[in-house]
Amino acid sequence: MNIDQYMQTLGERARAASRAMSSASTGDKNAALLAIARQLEASRPALIEANATDLAAAQANGLEAALLDRLELTHARIDAMLKGIEQVAALADPIGGLSDMRSQPSGIQVGKMRVPLGVIGIIYESRPNVTVEAASLCLKSGNAVILRGGSEALHSNQAIAACIQTGLKEVGLPQTAVQVVETTDREAVGQLITMPEYVDVIVPRGGKGLIERISRDARVPVIKHLDGNCHVYIDDGADEAMAINIAVNAKTQRYGTCNTAESLLVAESVADALLPKLASAYQAHGVELRACEKSLSIISANAANDLKLVAATEDDWFEEYLAPILAVKVVAGLEEAIEHINHYSSQHSETIVTEHHPRAMQFIREVDSSSVMINASTRFADGFEYGLGAEIGISTDKIHARGPVGLEGLTSEKYVVLGNGHIRT
Amino acid sequence: MNIDQYMQTLGERARAASRAMSSASTGDKNAALLAIARQLEASRPALIEANATDLAAAQANGLEAALLDRLELTHARIDAMLKGIEQVAALADPIGGLSDMRSQPSGIQVGKMRVPLGVIGIIYESRPNVTVEAASLCLKSGNAVILRGGSEALHSNQAIAACIQTGLKEVGLPQTAVQVVETTDREAVGQLITMPEYVDVIVPRGGKGLIERISRDARVPVIKHLDGNCHVYIDDGADEAMAINIAVNAKTQRYGTCNTAESLLVAESVADALLPKLASAYQAHGVELRACEKSLSIISANAANDLKLVAATEDDWFEEYLAPILAVKVVAGLEEAIEHINHYSSQHSETIVTEHHPRAMQFIREVDSSSVMINASTRFADGFEYGLGAEIGISTDKIHARGPVGLEGLTSEKYVVLGNGHIRT
Repeated sequence: MNIDQYMQTLGERARAASRAMSSASTGDKNAALLAIARQLEASRPALIEANATDLAAAQANGLEAALLDRLELTHARIDAMLKGIEQVAALADPIGGLSDMRSQPSGIQVGKMRVPLGVIGIIYESRPNVTVEAASLCLKSGNAVILRGGSEALHSNQAIAACIQTGLKEVGLPQTAVQVVETTDREAVGQLITMPEYVDVIVPRGGKGLIERISRDARVPVIKHLDGNCHVYIDDGADEAMAINIAVNAKTQRYGTCNTAESLLVAESVADALLPKLASAYQAHGVELRACEKSLSIISANAANDLKLVAATEDDWFEEYLAPILAVKVVAGLEEAIEHINHYSSQHSETIVTEHHPRAMQFIREVDSSSVMINASTRFADGFEYGLGAEIGISTDKIHARGPVGLEGLTSEKYVVLGNGHIRT
Repeated sequence: MNIDQYMQTLGERARAASRAMSSASTGDKNAALLAIARQLEASRPALIEANATDLAAAQANGLEAALLDRLELTHARIDAMLKGIEQVAALADPIGGLSDMRSQPSGIQVGKMRVPLGVIGIIYESRPNVTVEAASLCLKSGNAVILRGGSEALHSNQAIAACIQTGLKEVGLPQTAVQVVETTDREAVGQLITMPEYVDVIVPRGGKGLIERISRDARVPVIKHLDGNCHVYIDDGADEAMAINIAVNAKTQRYGTCNTAESLLVAESVADALLPKLASAYQAHGVELRACEKSLSIISANAANDLKLVAATEDDWFEEYLAPILAVKVVAGLEEAIEHINHYSSQHSETIVTEHHPRAMQFIREVDSSSVMINASTRFADGFEYGLGAEIGISTDKIHARGPVGLEGLTSEKYVVLGNGHIRT
């Protein structure tokens, strides 16, 4: 069987399984999740062993330390996976609920029923715990899923998939509701993203390069964000302590996450007072500042010797550093801040620090990003922090799902019409 | 300026206008709609004259009578356009509302704000009243729109666009919020559907061929349905009079609409009693029946001489006739009906006629179409009948919008986070 035939077979099986999953009861879906957790618990030695095979091969291939770390399955990480499954089992079932039923002048009643999307394709990189996370969200939302993890995690993912399939079988749900692509051939991805007859949506998780390629070549909808160039804007009259607190947290709480701030905008009226204090706070964290002309002059007049400070170039305003680097710009006020953000940002998450109600409202209304915040750190942009209970990814598109995507993003709605012999006249 | 440059210019202007439209007040948007209605009223002679130019050219080019009829702007049709605008002005503004604000354990409040999509591209055929309908829905939902109507309606559409732009100008909204493509070059469509930097979604309205081409070539999301192969399923124990009433209405109330039934499925247990009566009711409407083996034998045993009755082929189960033709099949019961529909239908609208509650529930749960109905004619699948107040189109996709699409389908949501100095720990 060649790759195309292999992927078509996975697709056909997933489509068939998705029909059964779409009408599976809440009880059966939850029972399957808990059975999967029990299987994983019982298979700890096998999981650790399969993972050791992957780790050894990855080390031999000279994989860098950060990637090795992401690949590793420790007992603590298995604990976290199990806890994650239990949390998903405890979430309300998004499927089957009828809403907004209203009587119409014709006499019919019209409302909506929430339904699964069908078959989800997930493409991700080295972390094997994504296999469990993604599978449990897809199962709970009544979808079938085809998982394509990183080739370096293949043995780990196969061992996890075996547990998932045993769990599904135990409660009588189709084992093919969760399938792991068992080839490391890159063509498999090309095939997965161009089978609209079998796959309803693709969720890619990984680096910008991977996601750009997938978005460009896909022939099915893609739920994605390319990057997170998030902004903190400190408004005229902002509370100084709050501004510093939020600006520092948004940048330094973690450097590698997509909701980390990459640009800081400061209103001219508060720049002289605030920038030197901000600079010294960032200096304490070892953050390099890439400053516009005005901020450069204000900061350098007061800077400590070991402050990392350089002039920003046009490219810096677009950059997602994922590192202890921050672009800094002085703006005239709110209007310029909004204009700057709508031009340069990746439409992920932006926050304003302000005491002024009308400007706060204008900011959240006019900034065109998936999350807009008032007096809060951009680091809150996350499915768990938003109370979704889980997160399959974050979308910066406006179609279908926007911002952190939980169970509901893996569903659609259909119209339901109740009549009693009604005909159209 | 070549076509590419021309379309880019329209795109840039639309993108800029969409920023202003997204924060336009409800009052301004409604005032603009009413100003547009006044302009159209005042410009009746100019509209009729421009339309006469189009009609004369279309007649000279030998356009068929049905298309000439759709192209014509009569005073009655202008009245209907004006009434339509007033109805859209009277609808609730979908934009800016905050919903589901909830406090989270961290102390932040998280909710959603409804926002416009941005720039909508509408591609349609000869009916000039679509220009007004589409423009008013896009304006009310805070979007900018680029309209590409049929080349045979260009003068009519330009005259209508002039009124719309005067109305926008009167209330200080950007005239470029509504732009009509003023070239009949087909390349303009190719360009419009491949400018993701300027156009957020395409809504094509027209024949299956047009929509297939657009969906295949588009590089932006498309809200669409290809066709409507809608089903009526008459269940075991269905009320006879109700079944005949609904099956006849769904087929014969109008033949050319996408929510017209094209296939009739009848449970074996009621086929002997019902099919002869149904056949004679369809005969009275001149409807040709394309019947499966079983139904052919039942109907032909009782048929009047002038009944149009032929054996169905496999192709008939997929067909959208848009004509007085109906495919008829006897099925064992609900399970086979659901299987048949999920295999052959275009996922538009399907109805069950039944007295049996569990089977009714199973039908609406398991049939995977954009509208599922119980004891009602498929002809109800329509934005107005569903109480949306308006309809920009119907979607048979599961992503973003499904079923009749009103104002809400032209919007998205963004997350809003309210803090009071909150940082992530």
